[in-house]
Amino acid sequence: MADLIAPQVLKGFRDALPSAEIPRRTLLAQLERVFASYGFVPIDTPALEYAEILLGKGGGETEKQMFRFEDNGGRDVALRFDLTVPFARFMATNLAQLPLPFKRYHMAKVWRGEKPQKGRYREFYQCDCDIVGVDSAAADFEILSVMASALLEVQAGQFTILVNHRGLFNRFLDKIGNRAHSVEILRTVDKLGKLGRTEILAQLTTLVGETGAEQILRFVEARGNFAEVLGELEKLAGGAAEDSQRLREIFNLLRHTGLEGHFRLAPSITRGLDYYTGVVFETVLEDLPEIGSVCSGGRYNDLANLYTKEKLPGIGGSVGLDRLMAALEELGRLPRSATTSQLLILNSGQEQAGTAQALAAALRAQDVRCEVYLDERKTAAQYKYAESKGIPFVASFGPGTPPALDQPFQLKDIRSGEARLVRLKEALEWINS
Amino acid sequence: MADLIAPQVLKGFRDALPSAEIPRRTLLAQLERVFASYGFVPIDTPALEYAEILLGKGGGETEKQMFRFEDNGGRDVALRFDLTVPFARFMATNLAQLPLPFKRYHMAKVWRGEKPQKGRYREFYQCDCDIVGVDSAAADFEILSVMASALLEVQAGQFTILVNHRGLFNRFLDKIGNRAHSVEILRTVDKLGKLGRTEILAQLTTLVGETGAEQILRFVEARGNFAEVLGELEKLAGGAAEDSQRLREIFNLLRHTGLEGHFRLAPSITRGLDYYTGVVFETVLEDLPEIGSVCSGGRYNDLANLYTKEKLPGIGGSVGLDRLMAALEELGRLPRSATTSQLLILNSGQEQAGTAQALAAALRAQDVRCEVYLDERKTAAQYKYAESKGIPFVASFGPGTPPALDQPFQLKDIRSGEARLVRLKEALEWINS
Repeated sequence: MADLIAPQVLKGFRDALPSAEIPRRTLLAQLERVFASYGFVPIDTPALEYAEILLGKGGGETEKQMFRFEDNGGRDVALRFDLTVPFARFMATNLAQLPLPFKRYHMAKVWRGEKPQKGRYREFYQCDCDIVGVDSAAADFEILSVMASALLEVQAGQFTILVNHRGLFNRFLDKIGNRAHSVEILRTVDKLGKLGRTEILAQLTTLVGETGAEQILRFVEARGNFAEVLGELEKLAGGAAEDSQRLREIFNLLRHTGLEGHFRLAPSITRGLDYYTGVVFETVLEDLPEIGSVCSGGRYNDLANLYTKEKLPGIGGSVGLDRLMAALEELGRLPRSATTSQLLILNSGQEQAGTAQALAAALRAQDVRCEVYLDERKTAAQYKYAESKGIPFVASFGPGTPPALDQPFQLKDIRSGEARLVRLKEALEWINS
Repeated sequence: MADLIAPQVLKGFRDALPSAEIPRRTLLAQLERVFASYGFVPIDTPALEYAEILLGKGGGETEKQMFRFEDNGGRDVALRFDLTVPFARFMATNLAQLPLPFKRYHMAKVWRGEKPQKGRYREFYQCDCDIVGVDSAAADFEILSVMASALLEVQAGQFTILVNHRGLFNRFLDKIGNRAHSVEILRTVDKLGKLGRTEILAQLTTLVGETGAEQILRFVEARGNFAEVLGELEKLAGGAAEDSQRLREIFNLLRHTGLEGHFRLAPSITRGLDYYTGVVFETVLEDLPEIGSVCSGGRYNDLANLYTKEKLPGIGGSVGLDRLMAALEELGRLPRSATTSQLLILNSGQEQAGTAQALAAALRAQDVRCEVYLDERKTAAQYKYAESKGIPFVASFGPGTPPALDQPFQLKDIRSGEARLVRLKEALEWINS
């Protein structure tokens, strides 16, 4: 006998067993339903692209993390490490065929050769939706609204989406004469929640002096409802302008759709440094704030400038799928089932095999997911199969002559132990109750 | 300004625009619903595996077609080229956690660096379902039944699933003393439909002489209903045995579930040569026979023997997704829509923006997929957007003061041109009619 090959998966990769894949697919289907309800459409792009395209302006961490190689035709290729860069390339490639504004979602795997650690893998899903080709309050509102609808759909509990506008903050920094340090200031302020006020004040003082530091903290610590905070920020930034007006319009739309309770204007939110140019947002689950943001994104002013001269402003939101799944599981809102079956029909041998399959077909025609046990084994073994998979109901025919489909059969709820003789109609009522 | 990077996809790869991705996802969801109705569960495996695992016994075409490279950690890795080999590895890896029989489906991308040609790509989907850990007529029937249910669900029109049993054919070859040539005979017979009787008779005569050739053609040309053909084959093979009894049991179950009209016992079907050991099948679409088999598969006696000593008999079926999509499109049963929206609400400016979004939210709450146009542009441009995306309904508010949600608005079916003033309830009735 030949030596066996060890059935190992690569470091940082993992199999998805049904107990993980069923809830993930359920979650993806819920998100997809929400995206589609707003008229977003799905796209897909190749897993492999020219390395040059994925590198873009390139360099740094991205390059080190890419799975990059030479293919059999001598091309320099790599696996995509996110969905944003391929989307930018996609827009440049297919612009002529896409009516603008273009609203797409893309839920797919990406690969990064980063050091594996708890909860971080080299293969994972991203789940992005973007509106490209328009710069309007309606588009900003729509991304915020679709994110809120998604969190409501998956029953993530109480949540707050924290919103800010990069332009408003920059205008404020201009006014206090500190725009030159904006990158360091944004980076420092972003850590306010983590490091606390005293530490951040000290760091800011080193950067811009005591007066500047206090002005900045006054800005990012503005408190109140959306309108109050906006009024305060506007005043600190030198009055109304396009940025504050945009936030006001967005809030007006949130109010009209009854969503305003899920949103807070949070001037310390900055979301990275280069890419975003307008509205930015991130999301706190109130029942599990320590897990971090589960949806985030923002407005950019030119998506695809590496690949086309066509200027494509847009706004995008991204659902952190693994983190959201972890959160839902911790909140007890993610049923971990190893089956999709609602009912197992016992296999009582040849004589009854035809009727058992006919019953299964009749139940499926009524949208009951069910299966016949596929081997002739002892009843106890068949029950064990149902239990280990979490199938709630078991049906069986009594011994004797081949039963007819219109005769009663035994139905048992193995969670409660209750068993009854039922006909098809009663069975359906019980299973669906 | 920096030079642009050409936004090209790799040779043999392609973007999926919404007009292709929407029907594909619809089709995958339909297949998934059918698989789940039989209690099959989804799994996933890494796109990248150790090359050694994917190569298996290795060599030949497979090795040449693999996207294989050394990763940053010096490992010899490759992208999966099918879902069967990773499934075998998956079973060996996770056997302790999987109650047998294990019934899984896996719908995912695979990669092959083969020469691109019309309709063949280097990245494509496979869609497999298998039952592992049992060798029974019930399991064989279930795979055949799930394939038939899938074709009924996607409305592929009239179809016939051609079934054979490798054991029965081999027994017949034993009887006529030609088992030694079985590989060449199977390969020749498999071309009967393509090359015609005269040519196949000539080829068989060269192989096994005139008498043998005529006996073989008599076997593979047996005609009649399932029971008649089975009786004839059994006689030619030397009487009843396990193989013919298995076919009889399967047919009995097909009859009990009303599916027998979709199946034909077809002794010339052989499906490759090494892997399968029992029942084999392939599928003809009666309205489009030239497109080839859209579902095929068969029974194997040991799935994972390269990776584990545990013997895992099973049966699998595979849906040829690209081919099925092409067929459905040609049959006019695959709506090629570029949108998921049912309704566009016109953007009539600031004053009415809140009510427009409130109407959209109210419609979504009633399961209408809809969107507000995101820019303030001329009405004609907004209509053009709806038309180019294939959105059937357009809603708008008359000019003037901000409308209230409980007031009537204009709804127009842009396919017929009919327009009416409606309230929400009437709008819902019209859109859903």
